[in-house]
Amino acid sequence: MAAGYKVAVVGATGAVGTEIVKILEERNFPVREIILLASQRAHGSGLEFRGDSLAVRTLDMEALRGAEICFFSAGSKISQEFVPRVVQKGGMVIDNTSCFRMDEDVPLVVPEVNADQITSHKGVIANPGGATIQMVLVLHPIHKVARIRRVIVSTYQAVSATGQPAIQELSEQVKDLFNFHEPQARIYPHQIAFNCIPQIDTFLDNGYSREEMQIAQETKRIMGDKLIKVSATCVRVPVFYGHSEAVNIETSRKLTAAEARTILEAAPGVIVEDDPVHNTYPLAISSVGRDESCVGRIRDDLSVANGLAMWIACDNLRKGAALNAVQIAEHLISS
Amino acid sequence: MAAGYKVAVVGATGAVGTEIVKILEERNFPVREIILLASQRAHGSGLEFRGDSLAVRTLDMEALRGAEICFFSAGSKISQEFVPRVVQKGGMVIDNTSCFRMDEDVPLVVPEVNADQITSHKGVIANPGGATIQMVLVLHPIHKVARIRRVIVSTYQAVSATGQPAIQELSEQVKDLFNFHEPQARIYPHQIAFNCIPQIDTFLDNGYSREEMQIAQETKRIMGDKLIKVSATCVRVPVFYGHSEAVNIETSRKLTAAEARTILEAAPGVIVEDDPVHNTYPLAISSVGRDESCVGRIRDDLSVANGLAMWIACDNLRKGAALNAVQIAEHLISS
Repeated sequence: MAAGYKVAVVGATGAVGTEIVKILEERNFPVREIILLASQRAHGSGLEFRGDSLAVRTLDMEALRGAEICFFSAGSKISQEFVPRVVQKGGMVIDNTSCFRMDEDVPLVVPEVNADQITSHKGVIANPGGATIQMVLVLHPIHKVARIRRVIVSTYQAVSATGQPAIQELSEQVKDLFNFHEPQARIYPHQIAFNCIPQIDTFLDNGYSREEMQIAQETKRIMGDKLIKVSATCVRVPVFYGHSEAVNIETSRKLTAAEARTILEAAPGVIVEDDPVHNTYPLAISSVGRDESCVGRIRDDLSVANGLAMWIACDNLRKGAALNAVQIAEHLISS
Repeated sequence: MAAGYKVAVVGATGAVGTEIVKILEERNFPVREIILLASQRAHGSGLEFRGDSLAVRTLDMEALRGAEICFFSAGSKISQEFVPRVVQKGGMVIDNTSCFRMDEDVPLVVPEVNADQITSHKGVIANPGGATIQMVLVLHPIHKVARIRRVIVSTYQAVSATGQPAIQELSEQVKDLFNFHEPQARIYPHQIAFNCIPQIDTFLDNGYSREEMQIAQETKRIMGDKLIKVSATCVRVPVFYGHSEAVNIETSRKLTAAEARTILEAAPGVIVEDDPVHNTYPLAISSVGRDESCVGRIRDDLSVANGLAMWIACDNLRKGAALNAVQIAEHLISS
């Protein structure tokens, strides 16, 4: 194995897939051979990897033959169909869809938080949703010091998390509006340009969306504490790249904003940007291309005794998706 | 007085001022004469009122002579300088800046909530900030039934609340980015196009922005309950018109989402749009031109016993500013 692994990227032409390929190269992941796969629609397109232009092939089991590490990022249905078959053939899957995230048999991992879960895998490791990853990176170090009992989070989520067609939709709608044409909504239920849509995924009977419930459940799973109560409001905003979040937490004992800042300055995968008087705080646009979750606006929550409020921004395609998946793979091969 | 009032609009060419002029006409406010005033910069421009094209004059005390009802919407400094002088001359002022909002001697009014405060004025009535108006319209009817103890609000605020130059800045930045030019930030501290900025106004020592503290203080004043605790995170989003808000409240006794919906369906100035399964919820873009605060996504807050979560959107220039000011004037002349 010294020469590296045969790696497959399923959904290689998508917003996350292209980022995975880029990050595998950037971080010099030990790749012996890379297979780029996508739906039939993408057949014929190519991607660069280490200076070579590689063809993207159509996904089928034959194309996946011999793949040792497979990154899946082509939607839940594709994962549902192919992941069990890859595992059966002895391949290892890091799945970036919501397909296995709630499966108790599948580790759900943010390496800085629960890398210890990786070894318990049965062939599949789930990559959490981007909105969860950036939040638990910040909350976990606080939780270790002063147990978090409650989290209220309102998100400002970028369209790139929905994929390339959504990036295009925002772009087209903006152009249409600036040219006095009626904008068309195909990917989202409403116009996203110059609007905020309080819907990500579909709704459950309790009035929360699947994305909102997923953040609640993933937070508990990754932080390993079922007692943390989470209420999320997930909102799509007209931002291309970078998710932002307004987060209010309540802890079991009082932690001052200054104490939280000190804890977070030492936390892995976290950057504290917190000097609001000089206009310094995390921003979606400045999170792009960075590996960390950025936190700022840390302040004592004036509405409760043991509370803190903060603002978190992170590159949703990078640490929120592709980078976290590659980091899981790095842990996997070194464990 | 049967023939109506001599009305002055200070800041008549601004985003709110033009809306005030439009709404005075729309609602057939008893205007005998209207005086449109603005800074010297706007001198020479004109506005339509009841089919007449009226010149906008430069603001000075001479121009305000004899004005009986004055709407001020030209920034705090202008209000600070001119409002006391207008009052001294016997004029009545409805001030749409933050200048007098925290002055205990000045009623701060959302007519649907505390119209009874209007008569206690000493010549000035303050129009609250838009983010507060749309929230208290929804919270007050709930508060009357089950006392609200705590409010956590994260805002998604449109650029038009900053005025015409901010509308232009978002527009220019979008055009620049789509033409591969570097966008320029002049009005806001950072690029607002395709970004979210967690800063509205300047910051206080406690880490909250003035806008955030204003929402907390205004909510207590308007709802007449100093015990309500409020923590706000105010965020500027790349939306031209319409503020949105994610609001979590805790009440003294349990109120179900269904009960809250019933209460709000009967509330003045409120529209319930709450059928998320059919993609129906308040939206910034659909709030534009409407008189009400729109609420939806009403659900039991899963993270606390007596909690509710909801989503509120409202036309920030209309009910969030101009309409509320005109409604105050309507109450004033009928009282």
